Amino acid sequence: MSEKLQKQENNHTVFIGPKPFMNYVTGVVMQFTTQGADEVVIKARGKFISRAVDIAEVASKRFLENTVEVKDIKIDSEGFENKEGKQVRVSTIEITLGKK
Amino acid sequence: MSEKLQKQENNHTVFIGPKPFMNYVTGVVMQFTTQGADEVVIKARGKFISRAVDIAEVASKRFLENTVEVKDIKIDSEGFENKEGKQVRVSTIEITLGKK
Repeated sequence: MSEKLQKQENNHTVFIGPKPFMNYVTGVVMQFTTQGADEVVIKARGKFISRAVDIAEVASKRFLENTVEVKDIKIDSEGFENKEGKQVRVSTIEITLGKK
Repeated sequence: MSEKLQKQENNHTVFIGPKPFMNYVTGVVMQFTTQGADEVVIKARGKFISRAVDIAEVASKRFLENTVEVKDIKIDSEGFENKEGKQVRVSTIEITLGKK
Protein backbone atom coordinates (compact mmCIF):
# COMPACT_ATOMS: atom_id res chain seq x y z
CA MET A 1 0.00 0.00 0.00
CA SER A 2 1.38 3.45 -0.85
CA GLU A 3 2.17 6.03 1.82
CA LYS A 4 -0.62 8.20 0.39
CA LEU A 5 -3.24 5.49 0.89
CA GLN A 6 -2.04 4.86 4.45
CA LYS A 7 -2.59 8.52 5.23
CA GLN A 8 -6.14 8.54 3.86
CA GLU A 9 -6.97 5.56 6.02
CA ASN A 10 -5.62 7.12 9.21
CA ASN A 11 -4.41 10.69 9.54
CA HIS A 12 -2.37 9.77 12.59
CA THR A 13 -0.19 7.17 10.90
CA VAL A 14 3.57 7.51 10.46
CA PHE A 15 5.09 5.19 7.87
CA ILE A 16 8.78 4.47 8.58
CA GLY A 17 11.31 4.56 5.72
CA PRO A 18 14.90 5.64 5.03
CA LYS A 19 14.67 9.33 6.05
CA PRO A 20 16.73 10.58 9.03
CA PHE A 21 15.70 8.95 12.30
CA MET A 22 14.69 12.15 14.07
CA ASN A 23 12.29 13.13 11.26
CA TYR A 24 10.08 10.23 12.28
CA VAL A 25 10.44 10.81 16.02
CA THR A 26 9.48 14.46 15.52
CA GLY A 27 6.60 13.39 13.26
CA VAL A 28 5.20 11.10 15.96
CA VAL A 29 5.70 13.59 18.79
CA MET A 30 4.08 16.44 16.80
CA GLN A 31 0.99 14.35 16.09
CA PHE A 32 0.39 14.19 19.83
CA THR A 33 1.53 17.70 20.79
CA THR A 34 0.22 19.88 17.93
CA GLN A 35 -2.27 17.73 15.98
CA GLY A 36 -4.30 16.63 18.98
CA ALA A 37 -3.92 12.92 18.28
CA ASP A 38 -5.01 10.48 20.99
CA GLU A 39 -3.34 7.62 19.13
CA VAL A 40 -0.57 7.43 16.54
CA VAL A 41 0.13 4.28 14.53
CA ILE A 42 3.75 3.64 13.50
CA LYS A 43 3.93 1.31 10.49
CA ALA A 44 6.95 -0.33 8.86
CA ARG A 45 7.89 -3.20 6.57
CA GLY A 46 10.97 -5.42 6.21
CA LYS A 47 14.26 -4.02 7.45
CA PHE A 48 12.55 -0.83 8.70
CA ILE A 49 10.78 -2.80 11.45
CA SER A 50 13.76 -2.45 13.85
CA ARG A 51 13.71 1.28 13.17
CA ALA A 52 9.99 1.51 13.90
CA VAL A 53 10.60 -0.06 17.33
CA ASP A 54 13.46 2.41 18.01
CA ILE A 55 11.23 5.34 17.02
CA ALA A 56 8.35 4.11 19.20
CA GLU A 57 10.72 3.69 22.17
CA VAL A 58 12.41 7.08 21.79
CA ALA A 59 9.12 8.95 21.19
CA SER A 60 7.28 7.31 24.10
CA LYS A 61 10.11 7.07 26.65
CA ARG A 62 12.28 10.12 25.97
CA PHE A 63 9.96 12.74 24.46
CA LEU A 64 6.50 11.83 25.72
CA GLU A 65 7.42 10.10 28.97
CA ASN A 66 4.49 9.83 31.40
CA THR A 67 1.95 10.89 28.76
CA VAL A 68 2.17 8.30 25.98
CA GLU A 69 2.62 4.51 26.04
CA VAL A 70 2.55 1.52 23.68
CA LYS A 71 -1.09 0.40 23.43
CA ASP A 72 -0.87 -2.36 20.83
CA ILE A 73 1.59 -4.11 18.53
CA LYS A 74 0.61 -6.20 15.52
CA ILE A 75 2.85 -8.13 13.15
CA ASP A 76 1.82 -9.60 9.82
CA SER A 77 3.26 -10.44 6.41
CA GLU A 78 2.37 -9.41 2.88
CA GLY A 79 3.11 -11.25 -0.34
CA PHE A 80 3.96 -9.30 -3.45
CA GLU A 81 5.70 -9.71 -6.80
CA ASN A 82 9.22 -8.29 -7.08
CA LYS A 83 10.85 -6.74 -10.18
CA GLU A 84 11.84 -10.18 -11.49
CA GLY A 85 8.23 -11.38 -11.22
CA LYS A 86 9.05 -13.61 -8.27
CA GLN A 87 6.59 -13.95 -5.39
CA VAL A 88 8.18 -12.65 -2.18
CA ARG A 89 7.02 -12.19 1.38
CA VAL A 90 7.71 -9.19 3.61
CA SER A 91 6.93 -8.80 7.31
CA THR A 92 5.08 -5.76 8.62
CA ILE A 93 4.59 -4.15 12.03
CA GLU A 94 2.04 -1.69 13.40
CA ILE A 95 2.81 -0.11 16.75
CA THR A 96 -0.01 1.93 18.27
CA LEU A 97 1.05 4.63 20.74
CA GLY A 98 -1.69 6.23 22.82
CA LYS A 99 -2.18 8.77 25.56
CA LYS A 100 -2.07 7.27 29.05
CA MET B 1 21.52 -10.35 29.65
CA SER B 2 23.56 -13.21 28.16
CA GLU B 3 22.03 -15.90 26.00
CA LYS B 4 22.83 -18.42 28.73
CA LEU B 5 20.85 -16.49 31.35
CA GLN B 6 17.90 -16.16 28.95
CA LYS B 7 17.81 -19.92 28.59
CA GLN B 8 17.85 -20.56 32.32
CA GLU B 9 14.92 -18.20 32.73
CA ASN B 10 12.83 -19.92 30.06
CA ASN B 11 13.75 -23.12 28.28
CA HIS B 12 11.44 -22.25 25.41
CA THR B 13 13.19 -19.02 24.44
CA VAL B 14 14.96 -18.49 21.11
CA PHE B 15 17.35 -15.55 21.03
CA ILE B 16 17.80 -14.17 17.50
CA GLY B 17 21.31 -13.29 16.25
CA PRO B 18 23.43 -13.46 13.10
CA LYS B 19 23.20 -17.22 12.35
CA PRO B 20 21.44 -18.41 9.17
CA PHE B 21 17.76 -17.53 9.11
CA MET B 22 16.47 -21.10 8.89
CA ASN B 23 18.42 -22.16 12.00
CA TYR B 24 16.11 -19.99 14.08
CA VAL B 25 12.94 -21.00 12.26
CA THR B 26 13.84 -24.66 12.78
CA GLY B 27 14.69 -23.92 16.43
CA VAL B 28 11.26 -22.41 17.03
CA VAL B 29 9.38 -25.11 15.14
CA MET B 30 11.25 -27.91 16.95
CA GLN B 31 10.39 -26.45 20.37
CA PHE B 32 6.73 -26.98 19.52
CA THR B 33 6.99 -30.26 17.61
CA THR B 34 9.61 -32.24 19.57
CA GLN B 35 10.10 -30.40 22.91
CA GLY B 36 6.41 -30.21 23.77
CA ALA B 37 6.39 -26.45 24.24
CA ASP B 38 3.01 -24.71 24.56
CA GLU B 39 4.67 -21.33 24.16
CA VAL B 40 7.95 -20.17 22.61
CA VAL B 41 9.36 -16.69 23.20
CA ILE B 42 11.41 -15.16 20.37
CA LYS B 43 13.72 -12.43 21.68
CA ALA B 44 15.90 -9.96 19.78
CA ARG B 45 17.69 -6.65 20.20
CA GLY B 46 18.60 -3.77 17.84
CA LYS B 47 18.90 -4.63 14.15
CA PHE B 48 17.87 -8.25 14.79
CA ILE B 49 14.32 -7.13 15.64
CA SER B 50 13.23 -7.17 11.96
CA ARG B 51 14.62 -10.69 11.71
CA ALA B 52 12.72 -11.83 14.82
CA VAL B 53 9.48 -10.67 13.19
CA ASP B 54 10.36 -12.53 9.96
CA ILE B 55 11.13 -15.70 11.94
CA ALA B 56 7.88 -15.44 13.94
CA GLU B 57 5.89 -14.97 10.73
CA VAL B 58 7.55 -17.82 8.82
CA ALA B 59 7.36 -20.24 11.77
CA SER B 60 3.72 -19.49 12.60
CA LYS B 61 2.31 -19.03 9.09
CA ARG B 62 4.33 -21.39 6.91
CA PHE B 63 5.48 -24.20 9.22
CA LEU B 64 2.95 -24.23 12.05
CA GLU B 65 -0.09 -22.85 10.23
CA ASN B 66 -3.37 -23.54 12.03
CA THR B 67 -1.61 -24.75 15.19
CA VAL B 68 0.46 -21.79 16.43
CA GLU B 69 -0.26 -18.05 16.54
CA VAL B 70 1.23 -14.84 17.93
CA LYS B 71 -0.02 -14.49 21.52
CA ASP B 72 1.83 -11.41 22.69
CA ILE B 73 4.41 -8.86 21.55
CA LYS B 74 6.37 -6.61 23.90
CA ILE B 75 8.89 -3.92 23.04
CA ASP B 76 11.28 -2.24 25.45
CA SER B 77 14.70 -0.62 25.54
CA GLU B 78 17.86 -1.30 27.52
CA GLY B 79 20.65 1.13 28.35
CA PHE B 80 24.23 -0.12 28.44
CA GLU B 81 27.80 1.14 28.15
CA ASN B 82 29.53 0.56 24.79
CA LYS B 83 33.25 -0.16 24.23
CA GLU B 84 34.07 3.58 24.34
CA GLY B 85 32.35 3.91 27.72
CA LYS B 86 29.46 5.82 26.20
CA GLN B 87 25.89 5.21 27.43
CA VAL B 88 23.79 3.81 24.59
CA ARG B 89 20.22 2.59 24.24
CA VAL B 90 19.07 -0.48 22.35
CA SER B 91 15.50 -1.56 21.61
CA THR B 92 14.31 -5.08 22.36
CA ILE B 93 11.37 -7.23 21.28
CA GLU B 94 9.76 -10.35 22.75
CA ILE B 95 7.30 -12.22 20.54
CA THR B 96 5.37 -15.00 22.26
CA LEU B 97 4.07 -17.73 19.97
CA GLY B 98 1.58 -20.16 21.45
CA LYS B 99 -0.57 -23.12 20.50
CA LYS B 100 -4.04 -22.15 19.28
